[in-house]
Amino acid sequence: MSELPTAPVAPVAAHEPPYYMAVFTTVRTQDQSGYSETDARLEQLVKDVPGFLGMDHAQTPGGLGITVGYFRDADALTEWRSNAEHRAAQQRGRAQWYQSYTLHVAKVERSHGFTRGPAGGAASG
Amino acid sequence: MSELPTAPVAPVAAHEPPYYMAVFTTVRTQDQSGYSETDARLEQLVKDVPGFLGMDHAQTPGGLGITVGYFRDADALTEWRSNAEHRAAQQRGRAQWYQSYTLHVAKVERSHGFTRGPAGGAASG
Repeated sequence: MSELPTAPVAPVAAHEPPYYMAVFTTVRTQDQSGYSETDARLEQLVKDVPGFLGMDHAQTPGGLGITVGYFRDADALTEWRSNAEHRAAQQRGRAQWYQSYTLHVAKVERSHGFTRGPAGGAASG
Repeated sequence: MSELPTAPVAPVAAHEPPYYMAVFTTVRTQDQSGYSETDARLEQLVKDVPGFLGMDHAQTPGGLGITVGYFRDADALTEWRSNAEHRAAQQRGRAQWYQSYTLHVAKVERSHGFTRGPAGGAASG
C-alpha cells in the first residue's frame, strides 16, 4: 500500500442515491510480492471507468482490509468488473495475496455526510 | 479500539441476498477520550438487534476508518438506527470524535466469498 499522506485524508462524500457500492473485505497472506504495484495500477485504471465516483480504503495492520468502490450505476460496476487487468489481478489475488475475502455489491438507498466546521460541527449531504 | 487478536481475523461471510449493509467511513479528531469504551459497548449492543448479521472494521493508523454493519433487512437496520444509546453515541461522535464521516446505507444484491484451502484455494458463497 502506498499511503503517502500528501493530502488530508477524507472519506468519499455522500452522492445522490441511488448509486452502487462494492465492499471488498480481505485478510492477506504472508506473500505480498507484487501487490502494491498492482494496487497502484488498478487505482489508476478504475478512474477511467465512466461513472466511477471514488474509493475508500482502510487497513488494520496485521488485520482486516476494507476497500469500498462507489459507482454511479450497475453498468459502471459491470464495466469495471469485466476489465481485463482487473480480472487478472483478481486471479492473482486468489492465487497469492488473499487468505480470505468477501465481496458485497449493493445499491445505495440513502447516505449522508458530516464535516466538522471551524466551530465544531456542520452537517452536509 | 480494542483489537485484541484473540481469534484469527476473518471477514464477515457472504450471506444470501438481499440483505442490508451500512458503510460508515470516518476520519477522527485528536480527542478520542471515551471512544473505545463507547465502541465496545455498541459492539455488544448491536448483537442484540434481531437480524444483525455481523460487522467488519478496518482502521488505517492516522488515516481512514471503515466500519461495515450487515443486517438481514431494512427493519433490523431501523431498529439499530433508533437505539437510544446508539443515537447518543452518534451525537457525541459529531461533537468530539469525528473530523468527518460518510454513511452509505445499501441493499446487497450479490455477494461471494473466498477462503484459501490447504492447497491454496477454495471458493465459497
